[in-house]
Amino acid sequence: MRKIEHLGIAVKDLEQSNQLFAKLLGKDNYKEEVVEGEGVKTSFFMIGETKIELLEATRPDSPIAKFLDKKSEGIHHIAFDVENIFAEMDRLKSEGFEILNEIPKEGADNKIVVFLHPRSTNGVLVELCQEKKG
Amino acid sequence: MRKIEHLGIAVKDLEQSNQLFAKLLGKDNYKEEVVEGEGVKTSFFMIGETKIELLEATRPDSPIAKFLDKKSEGIHHIAFDVENIFAEMDRLKSEGFEILNEIPKEGADNKIVVFLHPRSTNGVLVELCQEKKG
Repeated sequence: MRKIEHLGIAVKDLEQSNQLFAKLLGKDNYKEEVVEGEGVKTSFFMIGETKIELLEATRPDSPIAKFLDKKSEGIHHIAFDVENIFAEMDRLKSEGFEILNEIPKEGADNKIVVFLHPRSTNGVLVELCQEKKG
Repeated sequence: MRKIEHLGIAVKDLEQSNQLFAKLLGKDNYKEEVVEGEGVKTSFFMIGETKIELLEATRPDSPIAKFLDKKSEGIHHIAFDVENIFAEMDRLKSEGFEILNEIPKEGADNKIVVFLHPRSTNGVLVELCQEKKG
C-alpha cells in the first residue's frame, strides 16, 4: 500500500459530472476510457498524487448501474497503489480480508486490479491496483 | 485544491476499526483526537501524501451518528487541502456550489474547515481544509 491511487465516484451522466468536477477541482479531466469488462466509462482528474475517477455505467448489468439503483451517486470505492498485487493479496488474505476476484482483472489506466469485499473492510469497497508492466 | 488531504470513513467502533485499518494499510494510526464541536472521535493513518480519518460518534446527535443510522459504515467525506479557504469558498460559490457553513469551523488535526452540500457535488460530501496558521 504505497498511496491512494484513485477514488472512484459513481455518476449518472459523465458529461455533466465532468463539467462539475472541472469546476470543483479547477482543472479539466486528462483522460476518458471505456472498460468493457466492467461496463463502465471512466473519466480521470489528477489532484496531487491521487486521481479522481468518475464512473458511468455503459449497460444495465454494470456494477455501477447496480450501485446507482441501490444507493445513489457518490463515492463508490477507494483504490490503493501496490507494487506487487499478488504479494499484497496473500498478505491481506492471511489477515482475514476477503478478496472478491482471485485473479486480477483489467482496470482502467493501464492497471491490473482486485477488489476486497466491503463486509471485511468496514463497508468500504477497497481496490488494489498495480501498474501493468512491459 | 492542492491535494486530497484526507478521506473520512464513518465507523461504529473506533478501537475495532483501528485494528482493521492497521492490518489493511500495514501500519498503525499516528494520532487520535476528539473534536467536541462535531461530536466525533477521530483516528488518523498516513498513506502517501493523504490521510485516512476514521470517525466514531461521541454522542447521538453527532453527524456521524446520523450517517450511521441512515446509511451504514463506509466512506463519509473527501477533504481537499486548500491554501486559502476564503478565496476557495468565493470561487466555488461563484461556480454554483453550496457552502454548508459560511464561517469555517475547527476541524481535527489543526485545520479550519468548511463543507459543501452533497446535492451540489454529485452526492459527495466535500470538505475544504486549511492548515491553521500561527
